[in-house]
Amino acid sequence: MSIQKPTLPKGTRDFGPIQMAKRNYILETIKSTFRLFGYQQLETPSMENLSVLTGKYGDEGDQLLFKVLNSGDFLKKVKGEDLEKGAANVLPKVAEKGLRYDLTVPFARYVVMNRNELTFPFKRFQIQPVWRADRPQRGRYREFYQCDADVVGTDSLICEAEILLMIRRVFAELKLEDYDIKINNRKILTGISEVIGEPGKEGELCVAIDKLDKIGWEKVQEELTQRGFTEDAVKKLEPIIDLSGSNDEKLAFLKGFLSESEEGLKGVAELEEVLKILAEFGEGQEHVDFDVVLARGLSYYTGAIFEVKVNNVSIGSVSGGGRYDNLTGVFGLEGVSGVGFSFGVDRIYDVLEELNLFPEDQTQSTNVMIGYFDEEGRNYGLKILNGLRSAGLSAEIYPDYAKVKKQFNYADKKQVPYVVMIGSEEIAQNKVTLKNLKTGEQEMHSLEEVIGMVKAS
Amino acid sequence: MSIQKPTLPKGTRDFGPIQMAKRNYILETIKSTFRLFGYQQLETPSMENLSVLTGKYGDEGDQLLFKVLNSGDFLKKVKGEDLEKGAANVLPKVAEKGLRYDLTVPFARYVVMNRNELTFPFKRFQIQPVWRADRPQRGRYREFYQCDADVVGTDSLICEAEILLMIRRVFAELKLEDYDIKINNRKILTGISEVIGEPGKEGELCVAIDKLDKIGWEKVQEELTQRGFTEDAVKKLEPIIDLSGSNDEKLAFLKGFLSESEEGLKGVAELEEVLKILAEFGEGQEHVDFDVVLARGLSYYTGAIFEVKVNNVSIGSVSGGGRYDNLTGVFGLEGVSGVGFSFGVDRIYDVLEELNLFPEDQTQSTNVMIGYFDEEGRNYGLKILNGLRSAGLSAEIYPDYAKVKKQFNYADKKQVPYVVMIGSEEIAQNKVTLKNLKTGEQEMHSLEEVIGMVKAS
Repeated sequence: MSIQKPTLPKGTRDFGPIQMAKRNYILETIKSTFRLFGYQQLETPSMENLSVLTGKYGDEGDQLLFKVLNSGDFLKKVKGEDLEKGAANVLPKVAEKGLRYDLTVPFARYVVMNRNELTFPFKRFQIQPVWRADRPQRGRYREFYQCDADVVGTDSLICEAEILLMIRRVFAELKLEDYDIKINNRKILTGISEVIGEPGKEGELCVAIDKLDKIGWEKVQEELTQRGFTEDAVKKLEPIIDLSGSNDEKLAFLKGFLSESEEGLKGVAELEEVLKILAEFGEGQEHVDFDVVLARGLSYYTGAIFEVKVNNVSIGSVSGGGRYDNLTGVFGLEGVSGVGFSFGVDRIYDVLEELNLFPEDQTQSTNVMIGYFDEEGRNYGLKILNGLRSAGLSAEIYPDYAKVKKQFNYADKKQVPYVVMIGSEEIAQNKVTLKNLKTGEQEMHSLEEVIGMVKAS
Repeated sequence: MSIQKPTLPKGTRDFGPIQMAKRNYILETIKSTFRLFGYQQLETPSMENLSVLTGKYGDEGDQLLFKVLNSGDFLKKVKGEDLEKGAANVLPKVAEKGLRYDLTVPFARYVVMNRNELTFPFKRFQIQPVWRADRPQRGRYREFYQCDADVVGTDSLICEAEILLMIRRVFAELKLEDYDIKINNRKILTGISEVIGEPGKEGELCVAIDKLDKIGWEKVQEELTQRGFTEDAVKKLEPIIDLSGSNDEKLAFLKGFLSESEEGLKGVAELEEVLKILAEFGEGQEHVDFDVVLARGLSYYTGAIFEVKVNNVSIGSVSGGGRYDNLTGVFGLEGVSGVGFSFGVDRIYDVLEELNLFPEDQTQSTNVMIGYFDEEGRNYGLKILNGLRSAGLSAEIYPDYAKVKKQFNYADKKQVPYVVMIGSEEIAQNKVTLKNLKTGEQEMHSLEEVIGMVKAS
């Protein structure tokens, strides 16, 4: 066999020890928050039947699904004439399974398949990779983690308020301070389309408005006109686009603006209730920003819509979600309301990196390395090593006889903060020399003293 | 679109909240042990290029690889005449990537690709799913987790001794007591093949001996004869098959038995050194059982071979590994010695289930649920809820107005141990009623008292 230089499939990544330590720091923070709020973990298989996945993400999504070739003789159903009909025709004959595209559809499938055993409301979180055959580019990968929390089987707005609290807790733990949780309500968007005289067109309105941040109001107007919105309608939108002030001020304005739309007023009332529940929790509205043009372009939201933006960083949108009323309808289970949101782990990683917010000790793994000069030192070191580990300290011994410089170099590269060095003097005194690699200080101590000092550091 | 009852691909599983809690209990125990010993986490992509995977697992392994269809027009390179040549001919034209089959080959690929940045010895652990297109059956899945730790770049036998210590620590934490860590050395098997007069046939010897447990000595003899081993050779094997006694007694016997084989004596010396290092650690040989016929059928081991068997359960083999001297040679990097082993998470799960060893509180997620009768109670409850969570207790409020029975039913099904109930009396006294769902006891307390009681329980 010829030896080839191995490569990674494009759009995929290895996560080495330092990246894993940083990722785990983020994920553990998120998981502990989910658990604090009573969410339970779920994992679903990486492969789903294509019948489950296809048609759930639009035509473009279907194209981006990774399909898994049937095992065995995958050609057995394919005939010569099939080839001429093209890939779309051959696909169902060679592939029955695909890789998970998101965590939402597998969750819906799980709820439907287990509806008789589950206790509702069902609060689940799920942290697993998903795969999309997107064109890879900076910050966009073909395999990436999603990190979702959803509660289904209740339409209580307490859930919306708790999502705000969870986001604030995660960000506080991660020491992220300058961010906004944008919140809106789909019913408000529906109401707006009604009162500007374009009822039923809130879908198109959302698609256009969603681009406001990127292309500006002028271009959005053009797009609305192209989509058949009247000049009058576009003009009526202006106060919405210009809306500013506190959450309460905006809500007050909308009560007037939407006074002719029952649906719109319902959206306003829901949002008011979420803020009221926040107050009942004894919590304020810090970071919560009612953004009346927030749409997220996702057509399946029916109530609240969330998006979290970190300010003053290159890619700020790190989390999003909303309420949906028909998650499981596509699998034949109607009337299951739910609300969920998702943390973008890759983006939070990039943000923390950009703002230099990863705690320094997070990438340390081993607390103490033991070095030695000869076999006697090694053997003495093995006992010390066992003592350090029994005390709960992550420790290792340099496994080979090597120059002291090489041993220290190993500790240094692995970001080990302390080296315990064993020579004949240490053995004679039944002690060890502890060296702090940051300060360079070193001194002889007993094992017990070393344990105390490392633990206290 | 017609609505179909959704199903899972065969051989795959969902892990619901209770299973996840139990799996996490096992995985956290293993991870904390790996970290205590200085191993660092690595994750590699689910998809690898088929050029990396193919040819590494034998012909059967190649068959069992899941291949991922190229995205876009996957047929573009396929011509009519290709079809006649069959699937093996078409495969390279429609699929470039496959799903990870194990964690070892991706690890080797990672080491080779990052050899200039890595610090050796490199101690890594990796816990990720792998996929095999095996025929699904009880206990065998098409997607399952592997849980590997390896150290590469050193041939120090300290690593072998630490593997024994790590296994013992994991099992002690999991309260698993009745098990054996079988250990052998490939060089001993080589030596045996030499002294029985069949040098160079240790591969075949291993394959046959590996079946000893399953088919017995008589059938193994038949197989050896079929494989061309002389009657004399088979007869000379008998004392090996019958070998018993302590590790030291067996080693003493082998020093005589293998006295004519340099390689065999080297294996004995290595094994002695591992046990000596264990003693230098201040540790005994508990659970360590030198098994001279342990082969594991894996041809790439060159030194130590490990296998862990739990006694008195239906499927006992839960962990295995060994030393290899040429992990990365297939990718062009020669001379990297390493040793590693793998915990079988699914099997450990089944063993703990069979022996009823999962701690009861492991499947609890929420510590306290808050119930109420009316809006006033709900609002009071929201403040209590915030207080409980601020104290670090996992807590939730029943989100809807519902009958008390329904609220308690929810807590019960979710295995919540405590319910805090809010009525007008509780509000008047600025207290809550805490009910212990196991004992049925209930009493009014202040929030602070409740926090103390739940934390202490």
